[in-house]
Amino acid sequence: MLKSFPLDQETPAGKAIMGRLGKFPIPQKGFPPAYKTYIDFNMSDSYERLLEGNRIFVARKNHEDPTFFQRLSVGQQPKYLWIGCSDSRVPNDQITSTNPGEIFTTRNIANLVDHTDMSMLSVLDYAVNHLKVDHIIVCGHYSCGGVRAAMSNQHHGLLDNWLRNIKDVYRLHHEELDAITDVDERERKLVEFNVTEQVFNVCKTSIVQQAWVDNKSHLPRVHGWVYDVANGEIKRLHVDYQTDAEFHDIFRFSDK
Amino acid sequence: MLKSFPLDQETPAGKAIMGRLGKFPIPQKGFPPAYKTYIDFNMSDSYERLLEGNRIFVARKNHEDPTFFQRLSVGQQPKYLWIGCSDSRVPNDQITSTNPGEIFTTRNIANLVDHTDMSMLSVLDYAVNHLKVDHIIVCGHYSCGGVRAAMSNQHHGLLDNWLRNIKDVYRLHHEELDAITDVDERERKLVEFNVTEQVFNVCKTSIVQQAWVDNKSHLPRVHGWVYDVANGEIKRLHVDYQTDAEFHDIFRFSDK
Amino acid sequence: MLKSFPLDQETPAGKAIMGRLGKFPIPQKGFPPAYKTYIDFNMSDSYERLLEGNRIFVARKNHEDPTFFQRLSVGQQPKYLWIGCSDSRVPNDQITSTNPGEIFTTRNIANLVDHTDMSMLSVLDYAVNHLKVDHIIVCGHYSCGGVRAAMSNQHHGLLDNWLRNIKDVYRLHHEELDAITDVDERERKLVEFNVTEQVFNVCKTSIVQQAWVDNKSHLPRVHGWVYDVANGEIKRLHVDYQTDAEFHDIFRFSDK
Amino acid sequence: MLKSFPLDQETPAGKAIMGRLGKFPIPQKGFPPAYKTYIDFNMSDSYERLLEGNRIFVARKNHEDPTFFQRLSVGQQPKYLWIGCSDSRVPNDQITSTNPGEIFTTRNIANLVDHTDMSMLSVLDYAVNHLKVDHIIVCGHYSCGGVRAAMSNQHHGLLDNWLRNIKDVYRLHHEELDAITDVDERERKLVEFNVTEQVFNVCKTSIVQQAWVDNKSHLPRVHGWVYDVANGEIKRLHVDYQTDAEFHDIFRFSDK
Repeated sequence: MLKSFPLDQETPAGKAIMGRLGKFPIPQKGFPPAYKTYIDFNMSDSYERLLEGNRIFVARKNHEDPTFFQRLSVGQQPKYLWIGCSDSRVPNDQITSTNPGEIFTTRNIANLVDHTDMSMLSVLDYAVNHLKVDHIIVCGHYSCGGVRAAMSNQHHGLLDNWLRNIKDVYRLHHEELDAITDVDERERKLVEFNVTEQVFNVCKTSIVQQAWVDNKSHLPRVHGWVYDVANGEIKRLHVDYQTDAEFHDIFRFSDK
Repeated sequence: MLKSFPLDQETPAGKAIMGRLGKFPIPQKGFPPAYKTYIDFNMSDSYERLLEGNRIFVARKNHEDPTFFQRLSVGQQPKYLWIGCSDSRVPNDQITSTNPGEIFTTRNIANLVDHTDMSMLSVLDYAVNHLKVDHIIVCGHYSCGGVRAAMSNQHHGLLDNWLRNIKDVYRLHHEELDAITDVDERERKLVEFNVTEQVFNVCKTSIVQQAWVDNKSHLPRVHGWVYDVANGEIKRLHVDYQTDAEFHDIFRFSDK
Repeated sequence: MLKSFPLDQETPAGKAIMGRLGKFPIPQKGFPPAYKTYIDFNMSDSYERLLEGNRIFVARKNHEDPTFFQRLSVGQQPKYLWIGCSDSRVPNDQITSTNPGEIFTTRNIANLVDHTDMSMLSVLDYAVNHLKVDHIIVCGHYSCGGVRAAMSNQHHGLLDNWLRNIKDVYRLHHEELDAITDVDERERKLVEFNVTEQVFNVCKTSIVQQAWVDNKSHLPRVHGWVYDVANGEIKRLHVDYQTDAEFHDIFRFSDK
Repeated sequence: MLKSFPLDQETPAGKAIMGRLGKFPIPQKGFPPAYKTYIDFNMSDSYERLLEGNRIFVARKNHEDPTFFQRLSVGQQPKYLWIGCSDSRVPNDQITSTNPGEIFTTRNIANLVDHTDMSMLSVLDYAVNHLKVDHIIVCGHYSCGGVRAAMSNQHHGLLDNWLRNIKDVYRLHHEELDAITDVDERERKLVEFNVTEQVFNVCKTSIVQQAWVDNKSHLPRVHGWVYDVANGEIKRLHVDYQTDAEFHDIFRFSDK
């Protein structure tokens, strides 16, 4: 069956894969090694690693579903917008077992929603007004390097200005945070507060506010989640908005 | 074996999965359905779809490699920074068959590198100076909605300002582009020029320029790739920089 | 004496000025009309108004101080950075009776200091690290249209995202603000809180933080002022920082 | 007459002014010294300099026009938006002999119009859609430190990313610029090209494009000027748009 993979067995990469696959212990229940959900051969010092992985992806998808790429080439109709962290350990499609075509995605350091960040605003505009997504998910994660850096008093250069967003979250909730003596626990709480505030920030953009006013029948719903890198589980926070009814007056818009 | 999945079979979602799995044609060579690389049951109108997918991810990973999450919880050491498009059809880890932990990722509309975009600059700063990635990959894709929108003369509101970046790419190469009569062909060429220019933009940031001056022994290498949603293949463009030797003098820095 | 002005009396603008000056009541104490500090003839529907005003400026300066432009052409050594509002009624040099060459200036809507605004960060970087200014002044003003708009619940489109900065200031001080029943009084208080917070924002940028650590002998001092358009007077607020000693720990940096 | 100034002659500043004014050579034609258009006493190492200057401004304005502040307090109706450089030598109201209330102003380093700069876009939005200005003036100046820095190959840190805008202007016109052998002459030409491109950038924003489509009867007109610090004169460049008719198709919008 492995022959069905279009690996060029004459390339160093192809040889490495074939060699490795050959030595790989075949699982009891008959999963051919090529169907593991990842490749763990060692090519990590080369960009060739990614290109070889791409060839395997193409072969696998074509094998599983010969019409897969044809269907996708027509266009995208994602139901979800994912606002996540750049952290390499949180690839949003993998951790949700979703396919290409399902999640419109933007990722930055510490999953921040800065109301003057044109990159983010453009993503939101496109997702809400053109793609008409149903759900906007802000997903943070524990052990976030950005949150950790923001909690420290070290200089990180240019990055410090970006991390100021998180320091501002700390300030808003400093009483509750300062009361937590365990540092790890305090960091986890700040990760959660950060998600909550970014959900709030999404809701307060002109884009979502306008969508909530205009689209009586189709309101994007905004969720706050946290991913735990230590066990792979997503936890829902108690933030989930489809209206600005709960916000302080100053953040609500009306067309009256 | 399916019992090893922590699906709550009493929930509607769990029932839906079990029902669907039961009806799924078992492949000849004995791949249990749960080991398909994706789930195609229909829960697309609910965020529960993603949470259920997450439970499957956790079960699968623990099954394949019981130490997986434990190892990741220590920290990330990605070798790659991926600058890609938000398009739902281009999940960078899937199309390269990589694992969580391998690719530090940022994605925005049309994979643009705007030199005053603090979101991007912060990602670059963290990736180059803290994570010390070896490779920075700008990956565009054909059939890009952002490129298509930029080629049109329609208003898209706030988004227009972001797409201006692409119009500027058009302007720089308008002679070659205007000479292409086939619209699809011209669009594909603009997708490629856009990647080339964004690679150039990465190279011209203060961050990469400084890294090339400082890190004599460890130079981040910048690549330009294009993904073809119609067949899943990644194509390398002929841009691949590890020095500013080829740039116009005005874009080179020296400490002389 | 008026002949010393290089007005082209044959142009419509020149004729208008001369005609107007001729009719202008000469003040008792002998101030020639051309020495009024402004021109109030009516050319307001044309850009020519500004060009004619420029010719008068040149003539006046050369008359007052023949070496004026020669001295300025050498370079600038301003002692002050002014961060003010775009409002046309608050031209910072006029309201402080300063000369060209004295105040490095940036002005935006509602004198906001957004920590991810590269325009502002570049100005701060240049002012602090290259020009070595002694004083950074954030000057707001009562009757600020931006503050008023932010207090309302009306949509203003793209601008809403910028005004979110002010809504966040409201949130931080909502208890004190909500307690003020008079709307004008509340607006004035928000103007002041806004300045205080922007002063705080200046202090928390990586640029000022680093300057306070590095430049032991030359610390930029950050001031918060409010201009009253109703009487022309500048009021100092009780914010004036040259160290981060008073800030919450999370906002302080150290090189320890 | 000097007694009419509300200087507190008992303060050090007041004493300094009075002392200096007393020694100031009275011009032949009877201009009282207080009516010089600036104060050149030496308080340059203190922020008190600005506050004292403010007191003089108030006294002077009240003397010239007792209703001045009262009229301004009603609101602003500026006809002009000025996009200028932060350089201390180019205070836009002074060099055009205009009054408070006439020019809505934004100033940044090298008078750049970055299409993803929310500070600039907010100013444009407010000026065009709320204030309905007639004229938008981009005014650069010779001897611009930003342009000079961009022409060099030195690192300037964070600022380099902002100056990239100017390097891109150089790239667009490198053939013409490289052909100029005299460095000062080349710099002056780049200053002019920079203004031309920023005028172009203003015209290409979604805001001005939309205004040109919507406001059939009231089109904002965009001008490009250069100020010469060596002689105080403003020069008009040959760019002056009120329509996008002359632009490459890719930059034009239509509602067809």
